[in-house]
Amino acid sequence: MRAVQITEFGGPEVVAVRDVPEPRPGAGQVLIDVARCGVNFADTLLRENAYLASATLPVIPGIEVVGRTADGRRLAAMIPNGGYAEKAVIAEDAAFPVPDGVDDVAAVALLAQGLTAWWLVDHTTRVRPGDSVVVHAAAGGVGSLAVQLAKLRGAGRVIATASTPEKREFALSLGADAAVDPATEDLTGALCAANGGEPVDVVLEMTGGRVTDQSIAALAPFGRLAFYGMAGRIEPERVSPRELQRRSITVSGFWLMNALTRAETLVKAYTEMSAQVTAGELRVVHGGDHPMSEVRRAHDDLSGRRTIGKLVLDPHR
Amino acid sequence: MRAVQITEFGGPEVVAVRDVPEPRPGAGQVLIDVARCGVNFADTLLRENAYLASATLPVIPGIEVVGRTADGRRLAAMIPNGGYAEKAVIAEDAAFPVPDGVDDVAAVALLAQGLTAWWLVDHTTRVRPGDSVVVHAAAGGVGSLAVQLAKLRGAGRVIATASTPEKREFALSLGADAAVDPATEDLTGALCAANGGEPVDVVLEMTGGRVTDQSIAALAPFGRLAFYGMAGRIEPERVSPRELQRRSITVSGFWLMNALTRAETLVKAYTEMSAQVTAGELRVVHGGDHPMSEVRRAHDDLSGRRTIGKLVLDPHR
Repeated sequence: MRAVQITEFGGPEVVAVRDVPEPRPGAGQVLIDVARCGVNFADTLLRENAYLASATLPVIPGIEVVGRTADGRRLAAMIPNGGYAEKAVIAEDAAFPVPDGVDDVAAVALLAQGLTAWWLVDHTTRVRPGDSVVVHAAAGGVGSLAVQLAKLRGAGRVIATASTPEKREFALSLGADAAVDPATEDLTGALCAANGGEPVDVVLEMTGGRVTDQSIAALAPFGRLAFYGMAGRIEPERVSPRELQRRSITVSGFWLMNALTRAETLVKAYTEMSAQVTAGELRVVHGGDHPMSEVRRAHDDLSGRRTIGKLVLDPHR
Repeated sequence: MRAVQITEFGGPEVVAVRDVPEPRPGAGQVLIDVARCGVNFADTLLRENAYLASATLPVIPGIEVVGRTADGRRLAAMIPNGGYAEKAVIAEDAAFPVPDGVDDVAAVALLAQGLTAWWLVDHTTRVRPGDSVVVHAAAGGVGSLAVQLAKLRGAGRVIATASTPEKREFALSLGADAAVDPATEDLTGALCAANGGEPVDVVLEMTGGRVTDQSIAALAPFGRLAFYGMAGRIEPERVSPRELQRRSITVSGFWLMNALTRAETLVKAYTEMSAQVTAGELRVVHGGDHPMSEVRRAHDDLSGRRTIGKLVLDPHR
């Protein structure tokens, strides 16, 4: 079968389509014909061996797939790797049935991005009716869903940040109440200004560096910041427990890999979001449907932050 | 009236009983005849001006009182200061009616300690049925209540720490499933060993230094540590958001002062705990009922960590 296999770490040039053997399902697994595979920022980090988890070579990237089994079931699943391929094996007990009202791009978008957004809003920060919620990178895969999920949970005010006027406009179109440029020097002040001059209740943060630092500074008493990525590759300042105490605030980390054993909660999340997509309450943004042969361009677009919405690959093109 | 007034900061010698004018209630306030005033570790820090909030002199310490109004209502309340006195003014809308089944010591213990323990268990860490919960300083005012509140919420295993064999025995008598010496060199290992070899879900921590550091290291994925004091006066290590992310864990701070504006939640908490005391489900431990004239001894006992349970002063003796 055709697949993207990485045999050495490096830039976009190490990503190439090759002929490789089909994977064989083990116990509790099933083979699917991959209709679409998600492209994630983490894939570009994996390529450079810069992700939280280090990889062993050779490796086929791709952690989310949707497709059909030989007996015709349409399933979506997170997998450790192997998604950039015509065929993939998935674990039966961690596969989500996909309703007809959810197209292939949405089915994939509800996996890593959807489950992350849902977990951040529902579990990590427990957004409550009336809360003010800052969503950084609000035009991205997780951010665009998190803006909508926070509103669906009754957030009083959602403040989006995004790096360009177009992306900020886009975040507003998803339901955000305000949009802020994260490059603003006094980001703390800008976030509070966008919240009527008040500090904020919740921040969903995946940038790192000063964006994290200045977001923590913007938290109200009992505010919660969820740190779930470091796209800017700069470590934020370390956090003083004493300062957390003085202000009664919370800093949480979230990495979806830690949640993958919690199948029951993930099925609940996927089912809820599928129903919201079908009902037209949750909009998945198509960020580009690329033939697998153009995988390098997809990675370039993602690394260069030129994309809005969910990027997928079609392994059959 | 007689009161303990501090006119300069220092050791126990600056704490002396004097004659001072009675306070006058302002709008929304009422004068009570103080039956008992709570003695808190924070009072000894205030005396040395070492507390999170700095004080202006002269000051009458004491942040929790129970007593009767002129019209005979029995009320308990948190106050900014002024409790070590025969009379005190309290805010009407932040006063808790005390049921007959709750004695004066318990009425006071359910204030700073009780509300803190309740908030930590119910709000900050949201202890869930089956959770493993470490309670540091489990023989102290907050700890002894937190052990019981965690069990009442269905914690699967409560692991107490306390500095002496007597205090550990006492924590077990309150319902803790295991007790650990916090001075153990490998505290992380000892906490996990007390949890059947597994990392823990929740830690309530008020010690600081290596106890905080080694407790964070003992957290399971999705574990939560609440840092609500630094009795050992040594700052813990600062926490890396990246490390929180890798392990999907949470570090929260809690300081009761930040909660005092949330009257509705506090009334709910006080009412719940009063009912549990009356029903015999929640045991308040009397740690010493001192005449106000012996206030120095009470402070010495508290600073020297010789006490178990709630210390109170009787301003009329």
